[in-house]
Amino acid sequence: MKNKYDILIIGGVAAGTSAAASALRENPSLNVAIFQKEPYISYGGCGLPYVLNGKVKEVDDLFAFTSEKFQEKKGAEVYTNYEAIDVDFEQKYVLVKGNMDRRKIFYDKLIISTGASPIIPKFDVWGQEGIFKMRNPSDDEEILNFIEKNKPSHATIIGGGFIGVEVAEVLIESGIKVTLIEAKENILGDIEPEIHDEFSEYMIKNGVDLKTESMVENILKKERFIVKTEKESIETDMIIISIGVKPNTDFLLNKNVNMLKNKAIIVDNYMRTNIEDVYAAGDCATAYNILSGEDEYIPLGTTSNKQGKIAGKNAVKGNVEEFKGVIGSLITKFLDMEYAKTGLTYEKAKELDYNVGSVYIKAKARAGYYENAGNISFKMIFDRSTGKILGGHFVGKEIHSRVNIIVSLIYSCGTVQELYNMDLPYSPPFSPVWDITLIAASKAMKKVK
Amino acid sequence: MKNKYDILIIGGVAAGTSAAASALRENPSLNVAIFQKEPYISYGGCGLPYVLNGKVKEVDDLFAFTSEKFQEKKGAEVYTNYEAIDVDFEQKYVLVKGNMDRRKIFYDKLIISTGASPIIPKFDVWGQEGIFKMRNPSDDEEILNFIEKNKPSHATIIGGGFIGVEVAEVLIESGIKVTLIEAKENILGDIEPEIHDEFSEYMIKNGVDLKTESMVENILKKERFIVKTEKESIETDMIIISIGVKPNTDFLLNKNVNMLKNKAIIVDNYMRTNIEDVYAAGDCATAYNILSGEDEYIPLGTTSNKQGKIAGKNAVKGNVEEFKGVIGSLITKFLDMEYAKTGLTYEKAKELDYNVGSVYIKAKARAGYYENAGNISFKMIFDRSTGKILGGHFVGKEIHSRVNIIVSLIYSCGTVQELYNMDLPYSPPFSPVWDITLIAASKAMKKVK
Repeated sequence: MKNKYDILIIGGVAAGTSAAASALRENPSLNVAIFQKEPYISYGGCGLPYVLNGKVKEVDDLFAFTSEKFQEKKGAEVYTNYEAIDVDFEQKYVLVKGNMDRRKIFYDKLIISTGASPIIPKFDVWGQEGIFKMRNPSDDEEILNFIEKNKPSHATIIGGGFIGVEVAEVLIESGIKVTLIEAKENILGDIEPEIHDEFSEYMIKNGVDLKTESMVENILKKERFIVKTEKESIETDMIIISIGVKPNTDFLLNKNVNMLKNKAIIVDNYMRTNIEDVYAAGDCATAYNILSGEDEYIPLGTTSNKQGKIAGKNAVKGNVEEFKGVIGSLITKFLDMEYAKTGLTYEKAKELDYNVGSVYIKAKARAGYYENAGNISFKMIFDRSTGKILGGHFVGKEIHSRVNIIVSLIYSCGTVQELYNMDLPYSPPFSPVWDITLIAASKAMKKVK
Repeated sequence: MKNKYDILIIGGVAAGTSAAASALRENPSLNVAIFQKEPYISYGGCGLPYVLNGKVKEVDDLFAFTSEKFQEKKGAEVYTNYEAIDVDFEQKYVLVKGNMDRRKIFYDKLIISTGASPIIPKFDVWGQEGIFKMRNPSDDEEILNFIEKNKPSHATIIGGGFIGVEVAEVLIESGIKVTLIEAKENILGDIEPEIHDEFSEYMIKNGVDLKTESMVENILKKERFIVKTEKESIETDMIIISIGVKPNTDFLLNKNVNMLKNKAIIVDNYMRTNIEDVYAAGDCATAYNILSGEDEYIPLGTTSNKQGKIAGKNAVKGNVEEFKGVIGSLITKFLDMEYAKTGLTYEKAKELDYNVGSVYIKAKARAGYYENAGNISFKMIFDRSTGKILGGHFVGKEIHSRVNIIVSLIYSCGTVQELYNMDLPYSPPFSPVWDITLIAASKAMKKVK
């Protein structure tokens, strides 16, 4: 371990490892080090729920690299079990704390990629066996061990975001009854109401006891856990908390780093913070939303990878590559029901002063006469003055191929007329002769003036 | 039956029924009639192969409408078993021949949507039991009856286009051994060589005896059929001919209708022929290729539907809607291997004087650690001077969601840089964190100057 690096990277999951690899691709002779709080680096956090139902065979499969392998292949030094606890931007060092030591590590350029941690409400039971979060590979291991040992018949998930829904899926598939509690009136964040209703009805029909507008007030532990909302008490064998994440930026507080209210580090398109020679990337940082024009907190694996890569490159070469921003594209599934969105919701588009229009279409994913032709519902948001497509919201089967069209068109400022004109490839196993996106375009065109 | 119609439509499958419905949507008080050579109208021709393996349960499922139902729902008169045998553009009538009668039917506007027929080579055996085409619902019925009665162990498909490949799939699935004979050096028409090799190797591995660069010289019938190419003799129990189609335009010859060499009617973007008040649409007509700038013959179900709809509308309202053209998007599958293309091949792009570049990428369809993560190979064609994306060629799993991105970008003149910047929705069951299209864009960017 040196006491100074050309490029010092704090945090080594998606953004940090991408940054290190990218920096060393630009200039392999640089001294680059990653300091990582946890004992491992570089894992696919989005795959964590799927270890529980065996869609991912072993937790180990989630690791892209061990520290040793990463060091060997990419050329960056990796120090695990080192947490950043302080920083001095004047003298340009980070104070890191290991198991036995504290050191000042100086830098020429600093990349902060410390990620985010689950928000854990302050209940006394936290820390007891049977109450979990879902953020790190160790969480999977603990949950699997608990299930094996205790054969729980009922689990309660607190928080109905993407992780909550995915954990509900994998527990239901493992034969465990699930109650999902969400404080807001809907699950899955900013979602169109029609789409939400279809998706949540499917979840309920498939065994999830869904309680929206339910705030957990307390959790007690007797024989079983008792989760108390203002409306009721739910007895349960295990609890998974997934109410959201907060950026790991405590060591930066009072250091004049520009942050959002939630303490996400505000970065520009070059991944620069407001502090000279300091970049940030991934779940600890903001992402520029092209459609809203705002720096937002949308922590996602793809964004982390891209931002990390750009931060690494720019730290070496000066500011040569821009992160163009996101539009809030998301996809997930619950058993055989998929949900995807991209761009704006109707409400958000109204807020942004568009002359908003929408169409809501139901159609088959394949030719109606072809085997297993599933249903799709699609709500498209567009500007009625220009025809510009602003958002796409899907629920149903085989929607990945449809949402990707809308992503592409939003990026190219495409209109409903342009969508209608597109020569989409067609064959009965893949789509009806009029794809749902074309039907939507046709209906939307009539509303554009 | 009247002797004059406001809008007379000759041919009532995809384009003809679309035209009739669209014309009557514009003005329900018009007299619109469809004359159709076959005893039925409005069927999904692209689904025909899948009746053979039961992915479509019954031939009847392919029919969107019976004549009676169409008449009742859409308001057009339908006369089946009437073939157009002559036309007089001066006096504005079509001579139609029914089972018992011939009549002159006068028109105000004429829409020709007679479709196309399989090209059948002149072998003496044609017409004997056991030798088929694959174009009409009756072909399905004949093949199914033959298979049931004769339990053939081996079939020979002559012609390796999309229909040939799809028929190979369904016969293999029905437990029949298949030899597929193709005169050219590759199957599936204009295809990138790497993509072709992967797809055809998969077909061979899954039981298809594939013979490319093989011209059938003769077919004899003894106990079994004997198919003779210049290289060999193949004994077989049944034969399906799928070497392509030709437009049904014989009744228009020597009438000064502008046609391609293959007798496809040349139409403009309003679906007008060169004859006043005469429109054409669907498999008997050309489609404008946006990328080549040429009127081409690419008979496909989606195009037929769109062109028919536009022809019907324009025949009523004057020329208000344009068909913007196609880019040659196609998708099909053989068992678990999918093939899709859109836009130009490398060779075609060179012909068109682009400064052509390409990248060829292999990646997983899902996160590598997620269950059943299949392989995709992707060849992207682009212009090295501008970065403009010109073509996308895919083979593998879950490629529909990828080819649709490339279609969208070609329509919006998108570049590889723009593709790279896109916020595609990501989740392990749907894609790796770096989707294959983004990896391709990243590699392509390095070749753009």
